Amino acid sequence: MKLKELGEFGLIDRFAAGVPDRASVRIGIGDDAAAFEPAEGHLSLVTSDMLIEGVHFDLALCDPVTLGRKSLAVNLSDLAAMGARPRYFLLSLAIPPSLTLEFLDGFIAGIMQRAEQFGATLVGGDTCSSKGGLVISVTAIGEQLPGLVVRRSGARPGDLLFVTGTLGDSALGLELLRKGERSGPMVGRHLDPEPRVAAGIMLAEAGVATAMIDVSDGLLADLGHILRLSRVGARLELANVPLSPGYREETSSSAGAPLSLALGGGEDYELLFTTPPLFKERVFSLLAECGVGVSLIGEITASGRLSIIGEDGEEYRPARTGYNHFS
Amino acid sequence: MKLKELGEFGLIDRFAAGVPDRASVRIGIGDDAAAFEPAEGHLSLVTSDMLIEGVHFDLALCDPVTLGRKSLAVNLSDLAAMGARPRYFLLSLAIPPSLTLEFLDGFIAGIMQRAEQFGATLVGGDTCSSKGGLVISVTAIGEQLPGLVVRRSGARPGDLLFVTGTLGDSALGLELLRKGERSGPMVGRHLDPEPRVAAGIMLAEAGVATAMIDVSDGLLADLGHILRLSRVGARLELANVPLSPGYREETSSSAGAPLSLALGGGEDYELLFTTPPLFKERVFSLLAECGVGVSLIGEITASGRLSIIGEDGEEYRPARTGYNHFS
Repeated sequence: MKLKELGEFGLIDRFAAGVPDRASVRIGIGDDAAAFEPAEGHLSLVTSDMLIEGVHFDLALCDPVTLGRKSLAVNLSDLAAMGARPRYFLLSLAIPPSLTLEFLDGFIAGIMQRAEQFGATLVGGDTCSSKGGLVISVTAIGEQLPGLVVRRSGARPGDLLFVTGTLGDSALGLELLRKGERSGPMVGRHLDPEPRVAAGIMLAEAGVATAMIDVSDGLLADLGHILRLSRVGARLELANVPLSPGYREETSSSAGAPLSLALGGGEDYELLFTTPPLFKERVFSLLAECGVGVSLIGEITASGRLSIIGEDGEEYRPARTGYNHFS
Repeated sequence: MKLKELGEFGLIDRFAAGVPDRASVRIGIGDDAAAFEPAEGHLSLVTSDMLIEGVHFDLALCDPVTLGRKSLAVNLSDLAAMGARPRYFLLSLAIPPSLTLEFLDGFIAGIMQRAEQFGATLVGGDTCSSKGGLVISVTAIGEQLPGLVVRRSGARPGDLLFVTGTLGDSALGLELLRKGERSGPMVGRHLDPEPRVAAGIMLAEAGVATAMIDVSDGLLADLGHILRLSRVGARLELANVPLSPGYREETSSSAGAPLSLALGGGEDYELLFTTPPLFKERVFSLLAECGVGVSLIGEITASGRLSIIGEDGEEYRPARTGYNHFS
């Protein structure tokens, strides 16, 4: 078998297979962040993300400040998906000789903007030279009380399915960037995503969310993670999938399904979560407090499968279900 | 100014300049590992190291199992230098399409060997594709009681200066690898270093070490970090710098100074530490218990400078003082 056939999740399973169970590990491989209990009643949450030139970003299409902002934001989004409060981060950089000091200064400024905004402190890392492109590896550490952390695995039949913000803007922004656009709201959402840190913490601390994930691989792929780990099914109403006015306008003229990027594009960094029906109004009021939009897009079922209902009321089959790093 | 002129430490200073003081950060940028206090009386220590193909390793010169072992070992060495007990680690990989699944399986086996040996559990990370070479980024997390952690900054005039094991073997092993040798003790020390985890913990928990660092940049460079951060000088006796029989044999025929690699080669992953003179015998007995050799190589002074005494009793000027990643 080749790596390409194994895929990203097959590879992760291969790593996970060799890991022994240890009592102090509260959450291991397979959630948005791992959790360990450094002292009784205290949980540290930790997550790493790597950004590779030529894979995750193109230096010709982004400025150093937004690249710095995004490098931290994608990690903070993983903490947000657990309901954790960001505290510390480490930054490792492999730097090609061609990179200018001006670029690095911009990058530092950007990452520090997001750090300041969300209360995360840079505590360490590594710097070295690269013979290839720029490589950015960030590890973010957060905290939350053990009873409040929200996992991917807690969704139950009957729970409502919500998502924050709007979907597809980032993937559309990437398409527009590749066509030569350099700014605008869609491009902005791709280059400078806003992690839903306050919303994630609020949902966790209010005790309303049963399962949560950040939408980084695409709505259908990330919903799939919740369903698989919670061993449940879901009914997803396409008519309720939140689309921004800009997204609607750009995609209205395209011949293909306008929903394709919203369902499978990825890099939205919105929060997808489930709650028991009695918390429905509470969810709307909590997210209004954070100034973040939220949409009720479906329901968890006991069916064990995902049923997608189109705007015509018929079942819908998506063309694209998410991003595989090795395909 | 260019990055090359700024250098690795100049770049780190540039990052550190933007970091606000926060009370829960006990040790920030500038030591072997950072430390934060997740709950009163508990310290988490955290460190990241990146290994880049073409910079830190050459796939033609190493097998996947030892590369996996080394990827974790270099991080555990940083925890050892603080006296911390390894607990968890995260692994991020950027994988070129040419890498085989057999290679990855060997790499996983190697990293899990070291994890098992030192009680560290893999809890997370990231995998993605690379357009350049293989990139390995590891973050290791350890723990120790706040009062027992050993920093670089605690050396005081009169303290004795010790180093574990022997120096220069790894750098010599790299030279031999490049000349075509594929095995032997020197090559082994370069490809598969042994982190001094038990020795570091024992020195910390016995309360004998005032300052400690792992020798990764080279003895003189790493001693320089202790001196700068402790605001002291030192007298280093070259006659006492520990050299292995294999190192002595290989270098005896070379025209250059046989000590050059032992003083400036780097990647030894031995522990360099200071203790008050009253703990001298205790140090020897503690390290004998761990089965690790230790040598008394000098003394901390109030002079503010490093004085290196040659085997002839005269002051010695080294040709090479350490490794700069951007020079």
